[in-house]
Amino acid sequence: VTIVWLNGALCDADAARIEPTDRGFTMGDGLFETIRAMNGVPARLPRHFARLREGAGVLGLPVPHDDIVLERALREVLAPNALGDAVLRLTLTRGPAARGVLPQVISTPTLSITAAPLPAPLPPARVIVSQVTRRNAFSPLSRVKSLNYLDSILARLEAGRAGADDALLLNTQGDLAEATAGNVFLWVDGALLTPRIEDGALPGICRAVLLETHRITECRIPEHLIDQAQAGFLSNSLGLRSLSHIAGRQLETQYSLPELSD
Amino acid sequence: VTIVWLNGALCDADAARIEPTDRGFTMGDGLFETIRAMNGVPARLPRHFARLREGAGVLGLPVPHDDIVLERALREVLAPNALGDAVLRLTLTRGPAARGVLPQVISTPTLSITAAPLPAPLPPARVIVSQVTRRNAFSPLSRVKSLNYLDSILARLEAGRAGADDALLLNTQGDLAEATAGNVFLWVDGALLTPRIEDGALPGICRAVLLETHRITECRIPEHLIDQAQAGFLSNSLGLRSLSHIAGRQLETQYSLPELSD
Repeated sequence: VTIVWLNGALCDADAARIEPTDRGFTMGDGLFETIRAMNGVPARLPRHFARLREGAGVLGLPVPHDDIVLERALREVLAPNALGDAVLRLTLTRGPAARGVLPQVISTPTLSITAAPLPAPLPPARVIVSQVTRRNAFSPLSRVKSLNYLDSILARLEAGRAGADDALLLNTQGDLAEATAGNVFLWVDGALLTPRIEDGALPGICRAVLLETHRITECRIPEHLIDQAQAGFLSNSLGLRSLSHIAGRQLETQYSLPELSD
Repeated sequence: VTIVWLNGALCDADAARIEPTDRGFTMGDGLFETIRAMNGVPARLPRHFARLREGAGVLGLPVPHDDIVLERALREVLAPNALGDAVLRLTLTRGPAARGVLPQVISTPTLSITAAPLPAPLPPARVIVSQVTRRNAFSPLSRVKSLNYLDSILARLEAGRAGADDALLLNTQGDLAEATAGNVFLWVDGALLTPRIEDGALPGICRAVLLETHRITECRIPEHLIDQAQAGFLSNSLGLRSLSHIAGRQLETQYSLPELSD
């Protein structure tokens, strides 16, 4: 039986109960973090907790525990699942509520942590540029890892229909923002480029580490520049993934992925 | 005890269990309908079911029951709650799943129905124009009553901070789209105007009834036109609500709300 951590205690996944009135379920009113664990140790927790608290601030959502309790909870859920190398997911919602868009003044947030085996590294990705939807860089949600994931889901379904592995999302101005579950980096004429936060890139944690440790230019990337990329890769908290094709065009293969420090 | 309908059966709300891995909870991967019931009879069901099925098509989500079963379920949940005049909420999600953005090929959708007393009519609303976020009319989700409600929640919180009752949302082009939980209609120089679907207005059911039965112009409403409105109102499946103020400016009071046929 899988074990999850829910609102302060470990329990069997079969018994873990989210209420049908939970605003996470009824309105996507919450956020999450995806955290890699190696040998039972969750990685980059200070960065994850800082982003969680910043996002919770945008949503006006209290985080019910301090970082020490959160770290203990993340570690606790690994052992009974016999997972050393794992991917943890921490989900925080505004909790159960009566109907209505406006959050109630007093609410009890829901906090759940689940763990899954760390997926094997994936082969280079064929990506398309999504035609069905755009990322809204006018919304503060573009900077929050919120539960409102349907635009990414629609783009990912579109990629699947096109025989691709993932989709790049443009923002409503037509500039590159990110992929459906990670940030995107492109090699263009010897420079490594990545979209700016104000263009709709989620402030990814792996992205931040790369920006601190490599020569990378954050800039506006209009769609025509995507067509000029010689190579590229995606990043998220699970790691990096090369791009093999963009919109059917094969990329060059002599570019290696950057080293990622912890 | 409140009774809810969950995946085919009535049960106590205290026992109704959504799994922590439900994609409605983890990703907002689903949609809903809010339905008014009068004397135990849910209103405008053919329109609600048509919109539900159209939205489910956009999301690539199967609707697990035909309209007859859905109607029976909606009626069933009213009686044990001793509710005649009520507001019903039907929520459909892609159901429990392993992690990953791409939906699994085989999934069991989650369908829940909850009921609450019909709220009393509200006094005329003071509204602001949201400055914190915009509605993404480039996304097909702007035409779906999806669970991704955070932009509306952020705007509604902003309204509360400003001492207002609700917020109008502009789209990323700067044109009026809708309010946080309903469509918006404005009287401008003798004409009654409402934003077009392509401007980011949700295809509201009350909106559709009004358009069929009254002289109303669907048009692009740039922000400066909002400042010229003499009066206006909001609409959703629970009814109409006059506007008393927009962005602190008092509106005229001689305009009456249109009659709403069923």
